[in-house]
Amino acid sequence: MENLSHYKRSQRLIYITEYFLSHPSQQIQLRYFIDLFQVSKSTISEDVSLIRDVFEDKGCGTIRAEVGASGGLYYQPHLLGQERRRFIRDVQFALTNRQRILPGNYISLDDILEDPYLLNQAARLIADYYNVSEIDAVMTVETNGVALAVMVAHYLRVKCVIARRDSKDTVGPTISINYVSGSHQEVRKMELPKNSLQADMKVLIVDDFLRNGGTIQGLTALLAEFNCKVAGICLFAENSGQYTMDLPAYDALFNVQLAYNKTKGHYELQAEPGEMLSF
Amino acid sequence: MENLSHYKRSQRLIYITEYFLSHPSQQIQLRYFIDLFQVSKSTISEDVSLIRDVFEDKGCGTIRAEVGASGGLYYQPHLLGQERRRFIRDVQFALTNRQRILPGNYISLDDILEDPYLLNQAARLIADYYNVSEIDAVMTVETNGVALAVMVAHYLRVKCVIARRDSKDTVGPTISINYVSGSHQEVRKMELPKNSLQADMKVLIVDDFLRNGGTIQGLTALLAEFNCKVAGICLFAENSGQYTMDLPAYDALFNVQLAYNKTKGHYELQAEPGEMLSF
Repeated sequence: MENLSHYKRSQRLIYITEYFLSHPSQQIQLRYFIDLFQVSKSTISEDVSLIRDVFEDKGCGTIRAEVGASGGLYYQPHLLGQERRRFIRDVQFALTNRQRILPGNYISLDDILEDPYLLNQAARLIADYYNVSEIDAVMTVETNGVALAVMVAHYLRVKCVIARRDSKDTVGPTISINYVSGSHQEVRKMELPKNSLQADMKVLIVDDFLRNGGTIQGLTALLAEFNCKVAGICLFAENSGQYTMDLPAYDALFNVQLAYNKTKGHYELQAEPGEMLSF
Repeated sequence: MENLSHYKRSQRLIYITEYFLSHPSQQIQLRYFIDLFQVSKSTISEDVSLIRDVFEDKGCGTIRAEVGASGGLYYQPHLLGQERRRFIRDVQFALTNRQRILPGNYISLDDILEDPYLLNQAARLIADYYNVSEIDAVMTVETNGVALAVMVAHYLRVKCVIARRDSKDTVGPTISINYVSGSHQEVRKMELPKNSLQADMKVLIVDDFLRNGGTIQGLTALLAEFNCKVAGICLFAENSGQYTMDLPAYDALFNVQLAYNKTKGHYELQAEPGEMLSF
């Protein structure tokens, strides 16, 4: 193991800060730093306290201490205050101010979820909303929600599995289900490699947009075939009041609604932050 | 703007470290910190020097200063020393020690690219390898390489665009091409929404595995239709010496090769770090 006993407090603080940030949602032992810097437990505890206070002041994350035999520290990313307000404002603006209403009144969010800043902040918010210890994997279906799901999994430090519509490409054994696509009212297939998930895993479902709920029903049914548990269902946005299907409980960052503007003679989008963003 | 003039050096160091790490590959002005903490330029320069030295010592990144009117600081993530060696060893072990040879001698990398630790480190290495100022977007095709491409884009702080095989789902206008799939020697289609990329953008192509090069040829041809430039082509792994197609220059993190083990009577995988990992 490395020996950084020559480090001063200022250098330790930088090192430990980087360490927390590059290990989100992971258990970290004080012992690691004690051995690395060859200092006392109380010295490292003071360092961690300083870092925790700045993180909370900045609204960028919490450092939680878990007690007990398997105890340790966890860095959980947050998004609070000014950064959170900026994110909400930017997304609301983007949702309502672009040509995102496609033929059939389909709403495209691609440009928002391709924006590196908005994607990153959305993923931090979602990862922060769920209890990290309750999630073993993130799941989505190709393709629209994949970038968001990958980034959420990154902040939760768990695997992201991507169901495919049709794996004619070379994969190993898969489990597949049929589901009714809400948009087209047609039966479609989705599948996952059989070794993607183990029984009893707690899985967070992430997708970009809830239109009719067909995809969510499909993902939930696929999880049931793997004997996994739904730890949560999270959408970037939902189209309020348009459901034709029974859905389990879910959360959405934003609610959007199509409204016909009589004066202008076309549909417009209204967007509000969802309940998830109210605390 | 916030006023953190009450911050001591130790707190400033934590704050600035977090700021750099959450703004990879982005221009950062010293002025921002001078105004925020109400201190002199030389004080902030000293803080940044301390942080840069620890980052370089740790092998986790560089802070570069760019001069000129639009000058500023850039944090570029690295992966050096112990962490880099651990990554290479873990991937080599995973590549050669699992049941990843599928029917038709297709090689599946899914489990490696679903591992949050390996995925994250691979993305840092790739982002670090290319000159950040030369890349405007990352591009891939659904689905195997998507998680890697999303994470590379995250560290480069650019958008990630995902070409689709068939967007029967509701999207706006697209540009599509036909290409010859190397695996099946059949003509397939890939497409991107027309507004995904603008002319003259410099685009880094990222994919999981180079088998016959068909997919890479397709992505390159699609970029040409958008009048974009190929800033680089990066694969997680390539199957050495199996090409049937002319390909532009590319880089791969690992080289794998199928070798028949006469004693055991089956194929085995051999894996070596690619040239990308040699410096």
